[in-house]
Amino acid sequence: MSDEQTTARALVARVRDFVRDTVIPVETEHAGIVHSPDRDPAVEVALRAELQAAARSAGLSVPQLPVDWGGRGLDHRAQADVFEAAGYSLFGPLALNIAAPDEGNMHLLLHAASDAQRERWLRPLAAGGIHSAFAMTEPPPGAGSDPRALATRAERVAGGWRIDGDKWFITGARGAGLVIVLARTAGEPGDAGGATMFLVPGDAPGLTIERDVRTLDTGLFGGHSVVRFDGVVVDEEAVLGEVDGGFAAAQVRLAPARLTHCMRWLGLAGRAHDLAVGHVTGRRAFGSAIADLGLAQQHLADNEIDLAAARAIIRETALVLDEGGDTGGRAGTASSIAKTFVAEAVGRVVDRSVQLAGGQGVSEELLLARYWREVRPFRIYDGSSETHRWSIAQRAVRAYRKGLRHDLPD
Amino acid sequence: MSDEQTTARALVARVRDFVRDTVIPVETEHAGIVHSPDRDPAVEVALRAELQAAARSAGLSVPQLPVDWGGRGLDHRAQADVFEAAGYSLFGPLALNIAAPDEGNMHLLLHAASDAQRERWLRPLAAGGIHSAFAMTEPPPGAGSDPRALATRAERVAGGWRIDGDKWFITGARGAGLVIVLARTAGEPGDAGGATMFLVPGDAPGLTIERDVRTLDTGLFGGHSVVRFDGVVVDEEAVLGEVDGGFAAAQVRLAPARLTHCMRWLGLAGRAHDLAVGHVTGRRAFGSAIADLGLAQQHLADNEIDLAAARAIIRETALVLDEGGDTGGRAGTASSIAKTFVAEAVGRVVDRSVQLAGGQGVSEELLLARYWREVRPFRIYDGSSETHRWSIAQRAVRAYRKGLRHDLPD
Amino acid sequence: MSDEQTTARALVARVRDFVRDTVIPVETEHAGIVHSPDRDPAVEVALRAELQAAARSAGLSVPQLPVDWGGRGLDHRAQADVFEAAGYSLFGPLALNIAAPDEGNMHLLLHAASDAQRERWLRPLAAGGIHSAFAMTEPPPGAGSDPRALATRAERVAGGWRIDGDKWFITGARGAGLVIVLARTAGEPGDAGGATMFLVPGDAPGLTIERDVRTLDTGLFGGHSVVRFDGVVVDEEAVLGEVDGGFAAAQVRLAPARLTHCMRWLGLAGRAHDLAVGHVTGRRAFGSAIADLGLAQQHLADNEIDLAAARAIIRETALVLDEGGDTGGRAGTASSIAKTFVAEAVGRVVDRSVQLAGGQGVSEELLLARYWREVRPFRIYDGSSETHRWSIAQRAVRAYRKGLRHDLPD
Amino acid sequence: MSDEQTTARALVARVRDFVRDTVIPVETEHAGIVHSPDRDPAVEVALRAELQAAARSAGLSVPQLPVDWGGRGLDHRAQADVFEAAGYSLFGPLALNIAAPDEGNMHLLLHAASDAQRERWLRPLAAGGIHSAFAMTEPPPGAGSDPRALATRAERVAGGWRIDGDKWFITGARGAGLVIVLARTAGEPGDAGGATMFLVPGDAPGLTIERDVRTLDTGLFGGHSVVRFDGVVVDEEAVLGEVDGGFAAAQVRLAPARLTHCMRWLGLAGRAHDLAVGHVTGRRAFGSAIADLGLAQQHLADNEIDLAAARAIIRETALVLDEGGDTGGRAGTASSIAKTFVAEAVGRVVDRSVQLAGGQGVSEELLLARYWREVRPFRIYDGSSETHRWSIAQRAVRAYRKGLRHDLPD
Repeated sequence: MSDEQTTARALVARVRDFVRDTVIPVETEHAGIVHSPDRDPAVEVALRAELQAAARSAGLSVPQLPVDWGGRGLDHRAQADVFEAAGYSLFGPLALNIAAPDEGNMHLLLHAASDAQRERWLRPLAAGGIHSAFAMTEPPPGAGSDPRALATRAERVAGGWRIDGDKWFITGARGAGLVIVLARTAGEPGDAGGATMFLVPGDAPGLTIERDVRTLDTGLFGGHSVVRFDGVVVDEEAVLGEVDGGFAAAQVRLAPARLTHCMRWLGLAGRAHDLAVGHVTGRRAFGSAIADLGLAQQHLADNEIDLAAARAIIRETALVLDEGGDTGGRAGTASSIAKTFVAEAVGRVVDRSVQLAGGQGVSEELLLARYWREVRPFRIYDGSSETHRWSIAQRAVRAYRKGLRHDLPD
Repeated sequence: MSDEQTTARALVARVRDFVRDTVIPVETEHAGIVHSPDRDPAVEVALRAELQAAARSAGLSVPQLPVDWGGRGLDHRAQADVFEAAGYSLFGPLALNIAAPDEGNMHLLLHAASDAQRERWLRPLAAGGIHSAFAMTEPPPGAGSDPRALATRAERVAGGWRIDGDKWFITGARGAGLVIVLARTAGEPGDAGGATMFLVPGDAPGLTIERDVRTLDTGLFGGHSVVRFDGVVVDEEAVLGEVDGGFAAAQVRLAPARLTHCMRWLGLAGRAHDLAVGHVTGRRAFGSAIADLGLAQQHLADNEIDLAAARAIIRETALVLDEGGDTGGRAGTASSIAKTFVAEAVGRVVDRSVQLAGGQGVSEELLLARYWREVRPFRIYDGSSETHRWSIAQRAVRAYRKGLRHDLPD
Repeated sequence: MSDEQTTARALVARVRDFVRDTVIPVETEHAGIVHSPDRDPAVEVALRAELQAAARSAGLSVPQLPVDWGGRGLDHRAQADVFEAAGYSLFGPLALNIAAPDEGNMHLLLHAASDAQRERWLRPLAAGGIHSAFAMTEPPPGAGSDPRALATRAERVAGGWRIDGDKWFITGARGAGLVIVLARTAGEPGDAGGATMFLVPGDAPGLTIERDVRTLDTGLFGGHSVVRFDGVVVDEEAVLGEVDGGFAAAQVRLAPARLTHCMRWLGLAGRAHDLAVGHVTGRRAFGSAIADLGLAQQHLADNEIDLAAARAIIRETALVLDEGGDTGGRAGTASSIAKTFVAEAVGRVVDRSVQLAGGQGVSEELLLARYWREVRPFRIYDGSSETHRWSIAQRAVRAYRKGLRHDLPD
Repeated sequence: MSDEQTTARALVARVRDFVRDTVIPVETEHAGIVHSPDRDPAVEVALRAELQAAARSAGLSVPQLPVDWGGRGLDHRAQADVFEAAGYSLFGPLALNIAAPDEGNMHLLLHAASDAQRERWLRPLAAGGIHSAFAMTEPPPGAGSDPRALATRAERVAGGWRIDGDKWFITGARGAGLVIVLARTAGEPGDAGGATMFLVPGDAPGLTIERDVRTLDTGLFGGHSVVRFDGVVVDEEAVLGEVDGGFAAAQVRLAPARLTHCMRWLGLAGRAHDLAVGHVTGRRAFGSAIADLGLAQQHLADNEIDLAAARAIIRETALVLDEGGDTGGRAGTASSIAKTFVAEAVGRVVDRSVQLAGGQGVSEELLLARYWREVRPFRIYDGSSETHRWSIAQRAVRAYRKGLRHDLPD
C-alpha cells in the first residue's frame, strides 16, 4: 500500500469514529430531521453550528478543498471513501461541511470564480460562516430536466444586471448567504445557449423565499424553497465565469456534484443495511433467527451485492474524473451512468432493509423509515433516472455512428 | 351480460361517481391524512361521521353484508370491483364502511359469532355506530409473522376470563367500541394450538391504549396502537367460536381479509396511475409532451400491465373463495399468492407514478407522495412478502411430494 | 358449479391424461424437437400424423371449433384451460391440432371466409389433412413490428391477382397446403391501408421456400421459412374478406391468436416448474433437500406467483373476448397487455426452473434447456414486448385525453 | 497517467486489434462453435492451433504469466482490461491461451506446484503444447455446490495412489494432456477436510471419457465430459500441494478463476451490446430509427449501466486480489460478490441485446443467439448465484455478530 493510501485510510477511519461517536447521537435525538416547514429554523441553525464546530475541531472539515482553503486536497478517489464514511449518518455530511449544495458550490467557485470572488464567497463557505444555494430549476414550463427551457432573465442595467424570474426546489435557499443563480442573458427559452451564472447575496433586495416545498426528504439543511427574483440588481462582479457561458460553467459543477451525491447516499445505504442486519440477527421467527431464513438471506445478499457494485462504480468514476478532468464527454457519461446506477441501488438497499425490519421498518420512530423517505428523491433530483437513461442511450448510438466500439475498456 | 352482471356494474358506476363527487374533495382537503399522532382525534371522528353518512344516504354502505345487515349481499367477485372503485380514494373505504379492520371484523362476526354476539356487535358496526380493532400482533418475541408465538394469556376466572398481555400495531384501537383479541388459553408460546378469540368492549377496565406507533401510513382511522391488557375481565359470552379454537377461527377472517385489502389498494394504485398520466400528458420536456417520451412510455405501460394483472388475480381469487369457501387449502394458497403479487404490484405502480411526476412526485403537497408512503407497509402487514413466499414454496413442494402436478388449471 | 363448468373441467382432465400418457412419451423420445433444418422432414410428417390421429381417436381434436367443424365449440374462457393443459408438452398443441399458426388460421377462416372458402380450406385444416402458414412478416425494410411497411404487392391481372414479394419467419410454410398471405393492393409501404389477404395453395407456381431460418426454437412444425412470391397468380376466389381490407381482416385473427399463444406457453411454463420442483425435492445440498433452502424457496414461490398471475390474466382476457368480440379496442388492449405479461412471466418461470436444476438445467439432454430456448422468442414473435408497451402507453394517454379514467374496473 | 498504465493500455489496444482482425473472422466462419458432440474433434484441434499460433506470433499469449513462463506478468488489475478485450470474441481467450480451465490451472500450478511439477506441466501448458482439465464436480450425491460431498477416493498404494470415482461437467477433459483431480484421501463424504489434489496425465490407464454432456454452451474447447477414474494409479509426484490439503489448495485457484471468468464474459457482453447497437442504428420502425424509439433507449441505457457496473466491480475486486493475495476472507467475499453480480449482469445485457435485434436476435444464424446460450450457464457454473448469495448472507451476519460494521469502505 502506498503512503498516500495509508494516509487516506487513516482519515476514513477517523471520519467513521467521528460519525459514530459525535454525529449519530445527535441524529438519533433529532430522528434524522434537519429541516421541516413546521419547525423552528433556529433549531436547524444551532444544530448545524454545533456539528460543524465539532468536525472542525477534529480537523475533518471540508477535506476535499485545497489546504489553502482549509481542507486536505483530497482527489475524487479519496473523497469517495471519506464522503461515504460521512454519509453513514444523515447528519455526517452537514457536520463535515460537505453536504449538498454547499459542497458542489464550493467546487464551482474553486474552479470557475475569480480570485476576488473566491475570497468573498468561498472563504466563508469553507469556514462554515455562511451557506449557499444553487438556483437553476424553475417551475414548468421553465428549466427542469431540460435546462435549455431556462426562463429567468438577466438584463443589463447601469453598472450591472437585473434578474427576474421564478425558481423552485432550491435546496438550502432559506438562510443562505449566497445564491448562485442561472439566468438567461440571450436568446429565448428552448435555445441551447445564452445562460449566465450570477453570485447573488442571499439578502439582495428583490430576492424572496416564497415558501418551502414540503417533500419526502427532510435531511437537507434549509429545505427546498420556491424563490422569486423580482428586479434583483447585481454588479458586474457578480458574473461567475463568462457572460452567456452559464451552461458551460454549470458543467464544471455537474459531474463531480453528481458523484459526491452518490458517495454520501451510499454511506446511508450501508447504514440502513447495518440496521437491518442488526434486526435480523436479533429477532426470531418460525423457530430460527430471521437471519438464517432463506428469504432474509436473499435480501441480505442482494444488499451486499448492490453496495459493492455501487461502491465500485463510484470509485472507478472518481478515477475517470481524477484523470481526465471534471468536464467533457467521459466525465459526463461516466458520472451519468454512475448516478443512475447508484440512485437505484441505494433505493433498493434501503427498501430491502425496511422489509427485513418488518413492522419496525415502517415505523417512523426508527431511522429506517426516515431513510427510506430520504433517499427516494435521489432518483429524481440531479437528473431523473429517465433523463439520464435517455442521454446515455443517445451517446451510445452517437458513439457507434462515429465508429467507436463499446468495448474500449478504459 | 347476465342480469346480475348488469346490476353489479351499475353499482360500481355509482360508487365511482360517489368517490369522485363526494369523497375526493374531502380527501384533497385533508391531504389524505386520517390519523396522525399529532392531530386532534375529534377531527377524525367528525370526518368519519360525515363520510359514512353520505355513503349511507347514497345506499352504498357495507355492500358486502347480507341485506339483513344493511348491505347488498355481494359475493367476493362482485366485491372485487366495488371495493376497487371505493379504493380510488384513500377515504373511499372509510366512507363505505368497508375499511380495514372493520370490514374483516364484520366478516368474522357474520361467520363465527352467535346470534346474540352478532346483534350486540355486528349490528352497530354495520350501521357505523361503532368501529373495531383486531388485536393479534404482539411485540417480540410474541405473535408476529409466526402466530404460534402468541404470548397474551386468558385465564379462567369466576364467570369468565381474565386477559393479560401486550399487543402492538393494533389498527383502529383508539376509540374502538370493540376489540377482538386473540389470547392463549392453553399451551405455551410456540405451540400450534391453544388460542381463543374474545370480544372485548373498547372501554373494558384494564384495556389501555399505551401510545400510537408513528408509521409511514396515515390513512387508516385510529392509527396503529400499542395496547395493554392488564387484568381485563370478560364473561363467557365474550368467547368468539370455540375455546382453544382461535387459530382456526382466525382462518375465517384470513383469506377474505387479505383479498379485500388487495381490492382497496388496487383502487389506489389506479388513482396514482391516473394522476401520473395526467401529469405527463400536461407537461413538456425536450420539446415533447413527457407522455410521448420513450422512458415515460415504459413506466406507463408497466403500470397498465401491473394493474391488469393485479385485477385479474384478485378476480380469479375471488372466484375461488366464492366457489370453495373462505377457508381451507385452496383459499389459503390462492389468497396468499394474490396478496404477495398485488402488494408488490401496487408498490411498483405507485413508485413509477411518483417517478413520472418528477419533482412534484416527491412533494408531500400532492397526494402521490402520500400514496407512496401509504402503500409501503402493505408488503409487510398481513403477512410479509417473505412469509408468504416461504409458505407458498412449502406448499408447492408438499403438493409435489403428494404426487400432484402443478398444471391443475382450476 | 354450473353444468357447463363441470363439463369443461372434465374435458381438461381428459386432455391432461392424454398429454401425460400419449404425448409426453413421444416428446421425451424426440427431445422436444419437431423441426430442425438438419432433420428429415418425413420424421416430422410421421410424428404429426401419429399424434393427431391419437387425439382424434380420443375426441380431443380442435375443441375450439364449432361442432359442425369437428370441435366442441369452446368459448375463449374454456379454451384457456384446455389449451394450457395441452401446452404441458411441447407436442400437445400439435397433437390436438391447436398449434400455431393453424389454430389462428382456422379462427380467421371461420370468421372471415366465405362458405366456399371454408369448405375448401377450413374443412381439411380442421381434419388435419393439411396444415397452413400465415405470411405477413417481411425482411427489412418491409412489414415487421410495423405492419404498414408492407411491401409485397398484389396486382390485378386477368381473372385474378399476381403476387410478388418476399416474406420471412413464416412458420409452417414448409409443406403447407395453404399459405395465407398479406399483400399490398393499394398505396405505398408506410401507408395505413391498402392491404389484402389471399388464400394461396402451398403448391402454387412461383411460391418458393427459399430456406429455413435456424432459430432458438425448434418446437413448431415446419420451422420458420423464407418464402418468395414470384409472380404467383391466384383467382378472385382467393381474396379473403375485402380487397384493401386486409389490415382489418388481420385484426380478426390478432387478439385471439395472441391469447392462445399465451395459453399454450403457460402450460409449458407449468411443466418446467414441475420439472424443477421434482429436481429440488429429490436433490440435496449442504445437508438439506434443495427444496428447503431459502434461495430455492424464493424461486419456487416466484414461479407459483408468476404462473397464477399469468393464468388469471389469460382467463380474464378470455372473458373480455367472449363478451365483447374478438376485435375492437378492448380486445386489442387487453390481449396486448396479457401477451406482454405472459411472455415475460413464462420466460421468468422457465429461467428460474433452469436455475433450480443447476448443472442439469443447462444440459440439452433434458427438456428444461430445450424449453428455455423454446420460449425465448415469444417475447419477440407476435409483437415484441417493446412494440406492445409502446402501444399500451399510447392508448393509456389517448384514453386520458378523452377523459376516461383508468379505474374503470370492467 | 503512469508509465505502467500507458503500457497496459497499449497492450489492451493491441489485443483489441488482434481480436478484430484475426479472431473475429474465424469466429464468424465457425458461428461461435468450438465444441459439439456431433463435430469432428480434429476441427477443434486445428482451430485452436491456428489461433494460438497467431497470438503467440503477435506476442499476446498468456500475458498473465510471469516473463519466465512466456508472459508479461500482468497483475489482476491489468488482466481485467486485457481479458475483457480478449473476451470480445468467444474465441479470443482460446487464442490467447487464457481460456477456462487452462488459465486457472496455470495459476494453480504457478502458485501451488513444485519446481519439477511446474516444469513438467506448466511449461507445455503455457506454450500451448497441451491443454488441461480440472476435475472436481461429481454427479449427485457427490461434490457439487457443496464441495464437502466429495466422493471420489484416492487410496495409498505402493509408490503412490490409486484413484477411483466419477466426475462430470469436466470442461476440456477430451484431449487433455493433464487432468487435475480432487479426491478424498481421508474422512467421508460430507466431511470438511480430507481432500487431495492430483496431477493426472490425460492418457493415464483407467481414466476414461465416458461421454460429453450436451449443454447450452458450445464455446469451450473440449466440451464438458463425464469422466471415470477406474483404478487410476499415480506416483507421489502427482500430489499437488499437501496430502489432505486439497480444499485449501483449491482456494488458491478459486477467487482468481472466478474473476477471470467475469473478465472474459464481460468482453462478450460488450460485443453483444455492440451488435445490438449496430442493429438498432441501421433499422427503422414506425418511421424512426429503432435506436431513437424510447423502449430501445431503455435497453441501450440499461446495457451501458450494467456493463459499466460490471467492469467497475471486476476492477475493484482485482485490486483487492492484488493487494491482499488471492485467498482469505476478503478475496473470497469480494470475488463471490463480483461473480454473482457479473454473471447476472452479463445475462441481462445479452438478453436485452437479443431483444433489441428482434427476429434476428433469435436466429442462430447470427452470433447473438449463440452468445445468449453461451452465457446462460455462467449463473450456474463456478458456484450458482444461489450458492453465492447464501454464503454472502452468512458472511454478512457472521461479520455483524463479530461487531464489524458494514461501512468499512476498503
